[in-house]
Amino acid sequence: MSFYDATVPAYLQILSSLSGLLTKAEAHCEVKKIQPDVLFNARLYPDMLPLSKQIQLACDFAAKGCARLTHSEVPSVPDTEKNFAELSQRLANTIAYLKTFKPAQFEGADAKDVTFPAGPNTNLTLKGQEFINRVSFPNFYFHAAIAHGLLRHNGVEVGKRDFLGVA
Amino acid sequence: MSFYDATVPAYLQILSSLSGLLTKAEAHCEVKKIQPDVLFNARLYPDMLPLSKQIQLACDFAAKGCARLTHSEVPSVPDTEKNFAELSQRLANTIAYLKTFKPAQFEGADAKDVTFPAGPNTNLTLKGQEFINRVSFPNFYFHAAIAHGLLRHNGVEVGKRDFLGVA
Repeated sequence: MSFYDATVPAYLQILSSLSGLLTKAEAHCEVKKIQPDVLFNARLYPDMLPLSKQIQLACDFAAKGCARLTHSEVPSVPDTEKNFAELSQRLANTIAYLKTFKPAQFEGADAKDVTFPAGPNTNLTLKGQEFINRVSFPNFYFHAAIAHGLLRHNGVEVGKRDFLGVA
Repeated sequence: MSFYDATVPAYLQILSSLSGLLTKAEAHCEVKKIQPDVLFNARLYPDMLPLSKQIQLACDFAAKGCARLTHSEVPSVPDTEKNFAELSQRLANTIAYLKTFKPAQFEGADAKDVTFPAGPNTNLTLKGQEFINRVSFPNFYFHAAIAHGLLRHNGVEVGKRDFLGVA
């Protein structure tokens, strides 16, 4: 199997499960008469990011990860989403973007250098596989899992199977 | 690079960051005069698992994942930990176990069948790479990130850099 198989399907699995989570979160708001904005802006703690930003960051780590690994132009998507429908669209756009990648683009990318910003004035260079292990996957899964935990903490009735995308 | 590089170092990165998180959580309890048991048993929501079990599961998904991929005997570790010291030891033991694996054991494992329990009476078989993408990584990172979110939600002063293991 190629490095493509170790990256694109893994991101897609979770991006698609996040879409399902947002659908359930929105339905929960309707049933419980909760203003969707309350969940959209909810945080697990004041110094943590709100749900909307957790989803935006999960999208970015997936999209930019694939772009960097394949030395494609790194997409820059402004965080303009203001409601659940727009956030779901952001996920759909990211999924569509990831699906444009072809396995051949990832050939040998595990052993090639990837340079990425690691602070306001710092770039870091790692081999593709290290970039995945140390940067892209931990960040991607982190924001996705925090989004999930945040929704459950707010009473949305989802379980780990929703995170895994098998519910 | 081999399939070993795509698995063992990724698990180790986060297991080691979880050790650091527990150290900070314990120190937080001391400074704030919080009974460590309160954090040890804390949950993000009543139907979610407590911190202790999140850590135990992260350990299990890493250890069992490597065992299954290499067709080694799958370790079964009872969840007997009763405090932070024992939980840190569980992490240390898991890290030591993962370090016993050699790259050669993972040769071709991405394309080989892995059979694993997917319910009380159900086994599922996937190729190694699919097993990582769909089962082992999402579960592993999920429990690690929820443990982190749970600690922050309870006021432990850590950030994403602690999750990434670069703090």
